[in-house]
Amino acid sequence: MSELIIWTLDWVPEGPRGFVRDLRLRWACEESGLPYAVQTVPFEGRETNHLARQPFGQVPYLSDGDVKVFESGACLLHLARKSETLMPRDPVGEAETVQWTIAALNSIEMVSVPWWFLEISGAKDNALADWMGKRLDQLENVLSARQWLAADRFTAADLLMADVLRVAKLRAYGDRPATETYVTRVTDRPAFKKARADQLAHFAAADARRSAAGA
Amino acid sequence: MSELIIWTLDWVPEGPRGFVRDLRLRWACEESGLPYAVQTVPFEGRETNHLARQPFGQVPYLSDGDVKVFESGACLLHLARKSETLMPRDPVGEAETVQWTIAALNSIEMVSVPWWFLEISGAKDNALADWMGKRLDQLENVLSARQWLAADRFTAADLLMADVLRVAKLRAYGDRPATETYVTRVTDRPAFKKARADQLAHFAAADARRSAAGA
Repeated sequence: MSELIIWTLDWVPEGPRGFVRDLRLRWACEESGLPYAVQTVPFEGRETNHLARQPFGQVPYLSDGDVKVFESGACLLHLARKSETLMPRDPVGEAETVQWTIAALNSIEMVSVPWWFLEISGAKDNALADWMGKRLDQLENVLSARQWLAADRFTAADLLMADVLRVAKLRAYGDRPATETYVTRVTDRPAFKKARADQLAHFAAADARRSAAGA
Repeated sequence: MSELIIWTLDWVPEGPRGFVRDLRLRWACEESGLPYAVQTVPFEGRETNHLARQPFGQVPYLSDGDVKVFESGACLLHLARKSETLMPRDPVGEAETVQWTIAALNSIEMVSVPWWFLEISGAKDNALADWMGKRLDQLENVLSARQWLAADRFTAADLLMADVLRVAKLRAYGDRPATETYVTRVTDRPAFKKARADQLAHFAAADARRSAAGA
């Protein structure tokens, strides 16, 4: 079996630590027991230094032997095909998992990331606030009726949706108890905690190296 | 073989005609030769009348026997698994197709749809303009070097990316000749033209029915 390699940045500032999206792939590998290694590209020059590998200058991306994948959502779907832990093998369960994975990316994150961008830009009235509230309400309705998004069990869709939702300002944005309980349930999983701790340790080690180098 | 059913609205106003996302699924079926039927939910009450089937109150969604899928991106991936026309079967070609399908949804459309939303809201300065320009520049770089996004051939990823990009204001937004040539190449395909014509005819027939009913 070829080794999975998760590519991320060698260092990031404090702010994004615990949220860099390599965490999604670490978490998926920890859930499934798939062995993996982590390799890095430099933070300095990150917008242009790996465009041949990721044309939007982002991380993470994944290597699996000859197969190379970018977009964290696509990497998750690739891992989900390697492990039934992440996606059931029956056609209905598989379709539900893919559907909710895409919903996390294109119905929730498509609103939440630009909403967040406007929030941190300090605009007085966030023009995406109503849309954001509506989508979160619709998701609250779904999560009020069940524990997991797809196939009555944990899947890659829960991993991704919980990661999209755990952004702090988003959780504080309105009182949605089912969503809050859901995010807590999913992020209480040991695989999430290990993935997050490993990411924090990765960047802390980079601090130590930079400090030793007098950077 | 169970029949594919594409669900869309029974009627929409002039504005969105030719852009309602059932077109993505019609197009995929036309490319692949998969037989399909179209069924509808009412435009009136669309935000709440089919939440059990699509929890965000949107269309399209797809039925394939017992398998039911919403999110146009997830429906496309489902159809791509049924037809090699839409996605190669080798692991590298498949991974590239999934990767660029997700890139269309989460790297381009995640910016372009909120950007468009702010544009039509009439805000004086669109706070997402720089981000939009950067992503389109990055995509222009990719499309300057090749004809198709994945696997050196047309795939579902091109179908989706071209559909994301063909929004009129987006095409007019800056001079990006490779992107323009690409959108023209992909939308010149007979399957796109048939899917678009069929969608327009579907809504025109609804006009005629509403007119006959005195609506």
